[in-house]
Amino acid sequence: MAHITLPDGLPGIRGPLALRPEIAKPLSEFTEFLLRGENSLSRGERELIGTYVSYLNDCFFCQHSHEALAQHYLQCDMSFIDNFKRDYHSVPISDKLKALLSIAGSVQKGGKHVTANQIEKAKDLGATDLEIHDTVLIAATFCLFNRYVDGLDTWAPQDREFYVNRAKERAEEGYAHYDPYK
Amino acid sequence: MAHITLPDGLPGIRGPLALRPEIAKPLSEFTEFLLRGENSLSRGERELIGTYVSYLNDCFFCQHSHEALAQHYLQCDMSFIDNFKRDYHSVPISDKLKALLSIAGSVQKGGKHVTANQIEKAKDLGATDLEIHDTVLIAATFCLFNRYVDGLDTWAPQDREFYVNRAKERAEEGYAHYDPYK
Repeated sequence: MAHITLPDGLPGIRGPLALRPEIAKPLSEFTEFLLRGENSLSRGERELIGTYVSYLNDCFFCQHSHEALAQHYLQCDMSFIDNFKRDYHSVPISDKLKALLSIAGSVQKGGKHVTANQIEKAKDLGATDLEIHDTVLIAATFCLFNRYVDGLDTWAPQDREFYVNRAKERAEEGYAHYDPYK
Repeated sequence: MAHITLPDGLPGIRGPLALRPEIAKPLSEFTEFLLRGENSLSRGERELIGTYVSYLNDCFFCQHSHEALAQHYLQCDMSFIDNFKRDYHSVPISDKLKALLSIAGSVQKGGKHVTANQIEKAKDLGATDLEIHDTVLIAATFCLFNRYVDGLDTWAPQDREFYVNRAKERAEEGYAHYDPYK
């Protein structure tokens, strides 16, 4: 049972968001731009960054929701995702994305953990200022989401298939017109 | 110098927000509702929660921006703020707010650090579900802000008076129509 009374049957972030629709709306629009808006990082790459940070924060709902979206966008299988979470160096993603994931991992610990060397390496591998900006902001945003979801001890379906089965529809509807009851 | 090229002369979060106006707009509206919208927690109390989390995350810009706003709203002096940050039990705030700050401190560490005992204590002292919800979300949001500001190594004026002198105007203009160049 969650720490506070939440609407029945809404998993993860959907329960608390339903309490405050005036807050849910701009937060959903922000998420839409950040994770799905025009960007040189693909939607799949951005979902991987969110998955990785949620994995580091051990947030079950966010990790499984966003890994299913990453899987959908990247059209990979679940063993790719599992290997990615365990060691992103072991999977075939670009060296630039690996350098950005290293920055995201530091942001997860705290902003001051990001080093000039990490930034330099990412730039050497072709990362633009905007890609570094977005990586830091995506990682920081998942530090919000993960804390919001777990800080209220929200309910999450334990069956991984639940998330996989919903990913296609979630990808089609996007985040902006987010209806917690849908 | 920040990790990426940012517009000159914009302190803290203002620099990176100016890079992505389409993201800055919903994030500012979200912040307006969360910290200044209709709420049984006063604006001063909410700014204290944000100040406390920013202090725990050692984020200079956020800590000093939001403590100045708390000081403005609460009409207290700076020694109150200093004592509050060092030990919030030592200052004359309500027991309910102290219980909420304990929850915020746990959220800063990670969502799973919040315990049923902390929640029960807050409820016993009169905290509503919505106040607990908002406390968790405010604390989680400052974990985003602090990481965004420090993860990009943004510039912040070191003179505390800078923040104090701007607080009245910042309080009057609010967060929603946030212009990073103002």
